[in-house]
Amino acid sequence: MSVDSTNPAGKMWGGRFSEATAASVEAFSASIQYDARLYHHDIMGSKAHARMLARQGLITEAERDAILQGLTEIEAEIDRGEFVFRPELEDIHMNIEKVLTERIGPAGAKLHTARSRNDQVNLDFRLYLRDEADALDALLCETQRAFARLARKYLGVVMPGYTHLQRAQPVLLSHHLLAYVEMFGRDRDRLAGCRQRINIMPLGAAAMAGTGLPIDRESVAAELGFTAITANSMDTTGDRDFALEMLFCLNLIQLHLSRLSEELVLWSSKEFEFVQIGDRYCTGSSIMPQKKNPDIPELIRGKTGRVTGALMALLMTVKGLPLTYNRDLQEDKEQVFDALDTVKASLAITAELLDHTAFNVERLRAATSGGFMTATDLADYLVRRNMPFREAHGVVGRVVAFCQERNCELVDLTLAELQSFSALIETDVYGVLSVEGSVNSRVSAGGTGRARVEEALSRVEQLLGMTI
Amino acid sequence: MSVDSTNPAGKMWGGRFSEATAASVEAFSASIQYDARLYHHDIMGSKAHARMLARQGLITEAERDAILQGLTEIEAEIDRGEFVFRPELEDIHMNIEKVLTERIGPAGAKLHTARSRNDQVNLDFRLYLRDEADALDALLCETQRAFARLARKYLGVVMPGYTHLQRAQPVLLSHHLLAYVEMFGRDRDRLAGCRQRINIMPLGAAAMAGTGLPIDRESVAAELGFTAITANSMDTTGDRDFALEMLFCLNLIQLHLSRLSEELVLWSSKEFEFVQIGDRYCTGSSIMPQKKNPDIPELIRGKTGRVTGALMALLMTVKGLPLTYNRDLQEDKEQVFDALDTVKASLAITAELLDHTAFNVERLRAATSGGFMTATDLADYLVRRNMPFREAHGVVGRVVAFCQERNCELVDLTLAELQSFSALIETDVYGVLSVEGSVNSRVSAGGTGRARVEEALSRVEQLLGMTI
Amino acid sequence: MSVDSTNPAGKMWGGRFSEATAASVEAFSASIQYDARLYHHDIMGSKAHARMLARQGLITEAERDAILQGLTEIEAEIDRGEFVFRPELEDIHMNIEKVLTERIGPAGAKLHTARSRNDQVNLDFRLYLRDEADALDALLCETQRAFARLARKYLGVVMPGYTHLQRAQPVLLSHHLLAYVEMFGRDRDRLAGCRQRINIMPLGAAAMAGTGLPIDRESVAAELGFTAITANSMDTTGDRDFALEMLFCLNLIQLHLSRLSEELVLWSSKEFEFVQIGDRYCTGSSIMPQKKNPDIPELIRGKTGRVTGALMALLMTVKGLPLTYNRDLQEDKEQVFDALDTVKASLAITAELLDHTAFNVERLRAATSGGFMTATDLADYLVRRNMPFREAHGVVGRVVAFCQERNCELVDLTLAELQSFSALIETDVYGVLSVEGSVNSRVSAGGTGRARVEEALSRVEQLLGMTI
Amino acid sequence: MSVDSTNPAGKMWGGRFSEATAASVEAFSASIQYDARLYHHDIMGSKAHARMLARQGLITEAERDAILQGLTEIEAEIDRGEFVFRPELEDIHMNIEKVLTERIGPAGAKLHTARSRNDQVNLDFRLYLRDEADALDALLCETQRAFARLARKYLGVVMPGYTHLQRAQPVLLSHHLLAYVEMFGRDRDRLAGCRQRINIMPLGAAAMAGTGLPIDRESVAAELGFTAITANSMDTTGDRDFALEMLFCLNLIQLHLSRLSEELVLWSSKEFEFVQIGDRYCTGSSIMPQKKNPDIPELIRGKTGRVTGALMALLMTVKGLPLTYNRDLQEDKEQVFDALDTVKASLAITAELLDHTAFNVERLRAATSGGFMTATDLADYLVRRNMPFREAHGVVGRVVAFCQERNCELVDLTLAELQSFSALIETDVYGVLSVEGSVNSRVSAGGTGRARVEEALSRVEQLLGMTI
Repeated sequence: MSVDSTNPAGKMWGGRFSEATAASVEAFSASIQYDARLYHHDIMGSKAHARMLARQGLITEAERDAILQGLTEIEAEIDRGEFVFRPELEDIHMNIEKVLTERIGPAGAKLHTARSRNDQVNLDFRLYLRDEADALDALLCETQRAFARLARKYLGVVMPGYTHLQRAQPVLLSHHLLAYVEMFGRDRDRLAGCRQRINIMPLGAAAMAGTGLPIDRESVAAELGFTAITANSMDTTGDRDFALEMLFCLNLIQLHLSRLSEELVLWSSKEFEFVQIGDRYCTGSSIMPQKKNPDIPELIRGKTGRVTGALMALLMTVKGLPLTYNRDLQEDKEQVFDALDTVKASLAITAELLDHTAFNVERLRAATSGGFMTATDLADYLVRRNMPFREAHGVVGRVVAFCQERNCELVDLTLAELQSFSALIETDVYGVLSVEGSVNSRVSAGGTGRARVEEALSRVEQLLGMTI
Repeated sequence: MSVDSTNPAGKMWGGRFSEATAASVEAFSASIQYDARLYHHDIMGSKAHARMLARQGLITEAERDAILQGLTEIEAEIDRGEFVFRPELEDIHMNIEKVLTERIGPAGAKLHTARSRNDQVNLDFRLYLRDEADALDALLCETQRAFARLARKYLGVVMPGYTHLQRAQPVLLSHHLLAYVEMFGRDRDRLAGCRQRINIMPLGAAAMAGTGLPIDRESVAAELGFTAITANSMDTTGDRDFALEMLFCLNLIQLHLSRLSEELVLWSSKEFEFVQIGDRYCTGSSIMPQKKNPDIPELIRGKTGRVTGALMALLMTVKGLPLTYNRDLQEDKEQVFDALDTVKASLAITAELLDHTAFNVERLRAATSGGFMTATDLADYLVRRNMPFREAHGVVGRVVAFCQERNCELVDLTLAELQSFSALIETDVYGVLSVEGSVNSRVSAGGTGRARVEEALSRVEQLLGMTI
Repeated sequence: MSVDSTNPAGKMWGGRFSEATAASVEAFSASIQYDARLYHHDIMGSKAHARMLARQGLITEAERDAILQGLTEIEAEIDRGEFVFRPELEDIHMNIEKVLTERIGPAGAKLHTARSRNDQVNLDFRLYLRDEADALDALLCETQRAFARLARKYLGVVMPGYTHLQRAQPVLLSHHLLAYVEMFGRDRDRLAGCRQRINIMPLGAAAMAGTGLPIDRESVAAELGFTAITANSMDTTGDRDFALEMLFCLNLIQLHLSRLSEELVLWSSKEFEFVQIGDRYCTGSSIMPQKKNPDIPELIRGKTGRVTGALMALLMTVKGLPLTYNRDLQEDKEQVFDALDTVKASLAITAELLDHTAFNVERLRAATSGGFMTATDLADYLVRRNMPFREAHGVVGRVVAFCQERNCELVDLTLAELQSFSALIETDVYGVLSVEGSVNSRVSAGGTGRARVEEALSRVEQLLGMTI
Repeated sequence: MSVDSTNPAGKMWGGRFSEATAASVEAFSASIQYDARLYHHDIMGSKAHARMLARQGLITEAERDAILQGLTEIEAEIDRGEFVFRPELEDIHMNIEKVLTERIGPAGAKLHTARSRNDQVNLDFRLYLRDEADALDALLCETQRAFARLARKYLGVVMPGYTHLQRAQPVLLSHHLLAYVEMFGRDRDRLAGCRQRINIMPLGAAAMAGTGLPIDRESVAAELGFTAITANSMDTTGDRDFALEMLFCLNLIQLHLSRLSEELVLWSSKEFEFVQIGDRYCTGSSIMPQKKNPDIPELIRGKTGRVTGALMALLMTVKGLPLTYNRDLQEDKEQVFDALDTVKASLAITAELLDHTAFNVERLRAATSGGFMTATDLADYLVRRNMPFREAHGVVGRVVAFCQERNCELVDLTLAELQSFSALIETDVYGVLSVEGSVNSRVSAGGTGRARVEEALSRVEQLLGMTI
């Protein structure tokens, strides 16, 4: 960087400064080491801006062409890893504009006409997050498909359903798996709403007051696929709601993954032994030769903290900032990038791991016997015979206590024994005391009855475009 | 509570228990002290459930009527503050059901047929939050109106626009105020999406597997105004996404309020002296007799931490929970209630305070002179004369440095002095160097030009149903 | 409150105000609903302050006596629940001072001499937290004792030690239990450091600049048991570090409880069945008559989010506040009170629950067979025979794989089979392959060898003052 | 990595695995990209371990020497940037051990004798954090010195002291600056306590049960400068309290910096204009040529969110983990590293920036006139004449209101006017109504009186080893 005696800061904003920027300040404030990943969207935005400037007569067609050509070349260089980023130029915007101007001359110096980094970075970030929202949606869909494949594969397999980690009622494994399809479905729905709020065009807010130059924001929005333009320039330059909302969407996804991960860890334990995760998806111990650890689910569960930390960080950063742009907001990107990387990697490896996970059908089945899991069915049996539910609940509680003393199961009691608790009980009671009887009886909408689960699975497969 | 030797726990779930619950456990686990506020929605849900049970033949019409009548009476008693809540009955659901049964006998004991507290509390919470979403929307609307009233009242008043808390460019006060209308508008939009995801009917998931009794979930949903029923019973009972999303919506509202509060605190300082908050909305000092403090904005800003804390709390609570219901989830309500109370109170008092806030028009105007706030306009002037923007930026930087040395403003320079920096400058330059010239030139969409602000204000007033 | 035309605000600070405070403002800003719990410490501080004022000649001895007498009566009334708190008096300080002055006349109006609420609340809060630190220490000690009792009771019982929730190596149950004694020991150590930083006397900072009246801060500190006085009045009134540090200490305690709770939930599951929590410490299901749920550990685990939320809340509240006191800081107390209540209740019930928890010794023992848990011992055996550890690790890995194929355990292999993997193996190998052999061999300091665990337990019992 | 048919995973733990690790798993779970920064401490720990193994006869002296020599060479290579890290070797421990073994043969394979990565990483992390605690302490000291230099330089300069950002009472600038010395002093004290809890030696816990090999933990602790060894092997491997406590210490430091930064931003505004930050420590605008922005304080304030996010993340990660080591804990390092980097850089640049900050003495002085800042002094004057404080407070409130109506200051009132409010007022009142009179009267310990501030400054300079 040659020293210009009339601009000792050597910066594109340095005209009024009498001293060069301290090296420590450059190191502390530069963002190029992480915002370089916006280069594609920065260039996309600059091209649309340049086309508009030409349409509005603010630059000539020749200048526009030089800019477009120069930007295309720079993008290709970055793609190839050949572009040299300079920290003293602070950020991706200045790095690109500076090189452009070095190469194409005065036309490059016109690119920043009628815009500011304040609206430019907002544009870049929205363009980037719009693409990321789409990528996330695809990963969520792929994860849903992995669950649907398992649900199809194991259709009919019974297992204990848990509340409070206590065996509660028998359910179909496929029903359990489809619960996750619902969760990730909500995530996709929420993300779609977030994307709509991302997809508003901020360029033209300029520093924060708009501009007096005759720009056309609507045409830039149309070219870049935005559905509208932002309505207030001061709001625009200080707004990071869209980034916070994306962070929140990422939080719920990772939270869902943390629940799945907890289950995979439990199910991989010797005590549950419900699943076998493929060797390729586990690791061993540096000291205990026999160990096979469910590292991937553990890591995903552990990373939940990181994604929540990112949301906490940005909420705290924005707290109490006066309008409009304050440099504090530079802290937005690293948090969002890290959360995006984490959630995307977690989703991708989860989908992959599910495809390499085998359920131990026998263990699942065996776990449904014992534990009085059909007690609710006995209560419902009594209700059908017109006993008030609360009374039935009490009766069955006493039957359970009786069995516990005898160390036997409900199904092991004789009819006489059962009738000693209620005269309403007859021989047909044994139908509801079996695991299959119990599961298949639960035909309420959304319930675990096999017919219901098959319907749900078919609906899901159709929605996810899976050939059956 | 009479002691039942076959149910020493004396609980509605106590049939199998051999010992009474420890008093410390009752105290530790009871939720009635805070979930009592769900009583209205609990009763609304129970009534719809009872009507459905009757339609499906699970209870008689007479039983239904007794239930409805009993619940109506209980609700009236709670309304009047006459109902005695019993902590040993744990929660609002059991308190109501127990008294109902004590009063109407066996019919009351049938109310819990085909449902569990796991789906019941989910229903109550959703019904409650749906109403709260509507209440929040109304408060947000009222806050927007307060801003619009101020924007109308002060239309035409100029003030400095800030970036980095440095005076940047002159803007209209109304433009600044309308920025907040945009923020709260986004909050309303986001809340509407959240409300849609709240408005799904969970009842019928029962404990977590659905039920074998012939219920009709769709009709309950229709009666209660839900748009759909939840699709998977296991997902339903463990799901708190809707509560988390509500907490997030509340966070962004409070975050916006924190930014406004910061500005009100700044503007109330002797240094800014931009606003005068009515005495009724300030408080004094116990030691310094002259003090008049902007306590309300300070408190609102301070409470932002609390609302974020609530979101962090629930995210952390849900992390790593296996399906389906775990008692950890009981922690959801206090966080959401506290955040709702905080944000609603903050919104209500903000709207009120804005109506009692006067702007010091003279101070605002005075603050726009000095500080070279029309420097960008000079740069744009040069751009219009075809100087590349970067070059113009550099020229103006040097003009500013020149003025600083002479301790004068841009508008104080002679034409000759200005021309010494660029021959492109002519007499008409003084038009763009005035504050009004600068403001009114910014006619880009969303900019601070008076015509643009008037349009924006009219649009806002129309949207908010304000007669003009 | 009579209206004083020269003080329409009717507040003790209202001299310069021309309008009464809005009711909404009183409701929004009052803290008496939660800071009333500081009354004891507020009065203690006021008494010490009054004595000092008299010693310094700022009030007469008669005035001092009237103040002390009046405060003693007020304290007794609050103790008996007879004192009426008035929200329009804002906080505990003003509620007490106002009533004091109504009762004893002008002497009461002298109590606030040379102090401000800014330093007064800081004093009250420190006095309160000092007591709470002591209460927490006692509860931590009691919890440690409960663990030590269990460790003594079950001394010699073996169980699997886990890493990654996979059975890793056999350990003594008592060793596992003593791990928690270490965690809570660190908590006590950390809390002691926090208490030292709490125990600095702030009174005399006044509003924030100190006072010109001839006070004697050192004597107040000595009377109230503080070790020092704060050094800078501006720092003092804006400082909440001590509250944040207390919140952090509470977080680590609850975090440790969350880990224990997770284990209790796991161990209560049918799959583990390691413990039996007493019926009095469990609850049932409103729908499933057979259920017995580990609600208390679940609730404690769930409340971890709340305690972390409180810390996050206050950190966020303090962020970016200029010196000195800002009203935002009023938000400190509710967070700290709630976190204290939560952690104290969680500790108390944990200690109680541990006393009502029985370990299933047979199940624990059975769980140590299978799973190749002595594989590391085999590797160490080879190391003792001079095989490099990495080579030994590899050899044992292959032995494990061999056993898995044959579905047998290490101890089931013949000497010839073992020797086929390494010629270094001889008959004595069977000694290290047994569970007891493995456990007792681990005599490194801090290890699970029985001798070591007995030493550790004895040391703990001595430290905790337990008679053996 | 050559493929070993008996170890297809190719990992140092791979003996029992039948499949190679998936590439996606390696990418997802590797930590070498960030834990490489532990290399120095990893090698330091390994050397001490090797020396102990030799002393205990577990390896020969020749083997020890080969290990020490090999590790020294590896460290030098890493220092020079020549060492190639391999992601498939997962972490820093395995990268170093693998290369060591490749180079020195079987002796290298003996290094991992009697240890596990579970205790090794704990050791490395503690060694690293101990050094970082020392580095932080030095930076805190340097920052305190920068404040002390300014306090010395500007001794005697008056400025308004603020509460609620309202001018409250005049203070000395040096008093305000010394408030920060107190804050950072507390940080150093807290950090010292944290360092003590870090400085406990974990090695020898092995996987989590200790080891049967005859190690000597005490001698390793002594060699590495630890004050004690950890007491329970299971606690040791799952413990991250020390990392959490370090994160908390970092949070309070950054919180203090955020308050200073807020003040620097305010003071740099045109409205306050209290300070001039050197050009080298500010940056400009890409669009507004006249701007000079306080970016550094804004960035520091913004980064506070990041440091809190890190603490939130790790608290959440540890929540609910059963003993002992779980892979979730791998998430500890990135959060701590990032928070350390952030806080250290923020401290360093703050100290530097303070040295390049000039206060506008005239502006500060001018800001103390107006605003009735000596009102408390008038009240104290009346108190000295025996008027009860509350009454005096009311009188002065009325005098202030009187002045406001007349738009004058207290000092502008005639004696007759003053006496119309209280007959106790006499001519000497004008002494206390001046700014200097007010400041210098506040001689209470810790107050802003000049004598007190000089004492405080001298004490600070002495403590910080500054020559005067």
